[in-house]
Amino acid sequence: MRRIKLILTYDGTEYSGWQEQPGVATVQGTVEAALAGIIGRKVRVQSAGRTDAGVHAVAMPAVFDDLTTIPLRAFVEGLNSKLPSDIAVVSAEVVDPSFMVIGGAVSKTYRYTLYLSRLRNPLYRRSSWHVPYSLDFVAMELAAKRFIGTHDFAAFRGQNCTAATTIRRIDSIAISVDGPLMTIDVSGGGFLKNMVRIIVGTLVDIGRGRFCESIVTELLLCPDRTRAGVTAPPHGLCLMSVRY
Amino acid sequence: MRRIKLILTYDGTEYSGWQEQPGVATVQGTVEAALAGIIGRKVRVQSAGRTDAGVHAVAMPAVFDDLTTIPLRAFVEGLNSKLPSDIAVVSAEVVDPSFMVIGGAVSKTYRYTLYLSRLRNPLYRRSSWHVPYSLDFVAMELAAKRFIGTHDFAAFRGQNCTAATTIRRIDSIAISVDGPLMTIDVSGGGFLKNMVRIIVGTLVDIGRGRFCESIVTELLLCPDRTRAGVTAPPHGLCLMSVRY
Repeated sequence: MRRIKLILTYDGTEYSGWQEQPGVATVQGTVEAALAGIIGRKVRVQSAGRTDAGVHAVAMPAVFDDLTTIPLRAFVEGLNSKLPSDIAVVSAEVVDPSFMVIGGAVSKTYRYTLYLSRLRNPLYRRSSWHVPYSLDFVAMELAAKRFIGTHDFAAFRGQNCTAATTIRRIDSIAISVDGPLMTIDVSGGGFLKNMVRIIVGTLVDIGRGRFCESIVTELLLCPDRTRAGVTAPPHGLCLMSVRY
Repeated sequence: MRRIKLILTYDGTEYSGWQEQPGVATVQGTVEAALAGIIGRKVRVQSAGRTDAGVHAVAMPAVFDDLTTIPLRAFVEGLNSKLPSDIAVVSAEVVDPSFMVIGGAVSKTYRYTLYLSRLRNPLYRRSSWHVPYSLDFVAMELAAKRFIGTHDFAAFRGQNCTAATTIRRIDSIAISVDGPLMTIDVSGGGFLKNMVRIIVGTLVDIGRGRFCESIVTELLLCPDRTRAGVTAPPHGLCLMSVRY
């Protein structure tokens, strides 16, 4: 038995997220179906994270246990020839059978992209959130710093989040602007359901002056989801990397 | 009567090009239908160029003659609310009734984007041509210089091109590389059908060593379409601007 780690890139626009669900297209279901076409039977493919519907990935690690002796390149070129154009395998490697794709992750980095303009732009609609009001970049940067560290993020999790603990660690939040595009890179030890999207929504609400940046510290000390910002839409979010 | 000039941005992936044709979705047909919803009747909207199926535009000028007194902003906000998410109006202005959207164009700039990597990337699949072999950037730059000037581009036009003359002027071709993305910006007085795509295909064939860069000069002096490079696929092409 070999445990094989794939790195996947996908455009999540057409998928109901990572996790397999009956009757809808999911990234997991699509990858498992393509893999079954290579190895002749269905095996479970587990990813480092369950991205929501519409969320993208540049480098999503995913593992499966393989009983064949098929050369590794079949899991790159072969899988790519069977996968639809919006999912691709970047690499495949054999990892230790004890490798844990979820539990072994040391940090993850997500990028959220905003398109800042009065008018919407069709060319960025699948990969960014159109924000038609001007944002106070300095206030957002000051607010972002307040998230750094290990805190109770109970105010920043979506409904139906089933995590046992809401304590999480944020290592960095880097905001940069390039023309009408603002990117917010969030790195941390792991994230609650919708956590990055609610952090981004709160930063945008601070940037447009709806909240003062001190709201971040208040919400980390006295969690209250109803006082945090909006949940930024999924299509602006992309998993960039997972470190082990 | 007012002549109104719109600037349109669109993602051409889902359209059979600009020009209205029965039974298929076109950018022109979609814009005219949305406009009819604003002004109450169908009017012809003429663009500066007939982009092919799958080709995009950052700023496509398009004009129509209007008999209403509807405020100009209705042709921005109003049209945007009626257009699908892959087409948007950037601006609307009244121009002189003698303004010619095709004949008045002094120069046009197209950008062609290549994704250079052994493996395909789902995140760039709608906006770039995946080229899986390495390219000789220097040879491509030298070849690009040979296109500059006024020449007979008969070797660089697609089938069914009905232009009366094949003499065209290229002002500049700028190639730049940013990570795995190569962009080729082509500016000129006007272009034959598929001309930019055949220029790009020829540059790529030179970059991968299939042709020597002197082929460009030969083909401009002795036109022969069969000796020029492949026609680069439409989805890598985007109209950036038209100058009047």
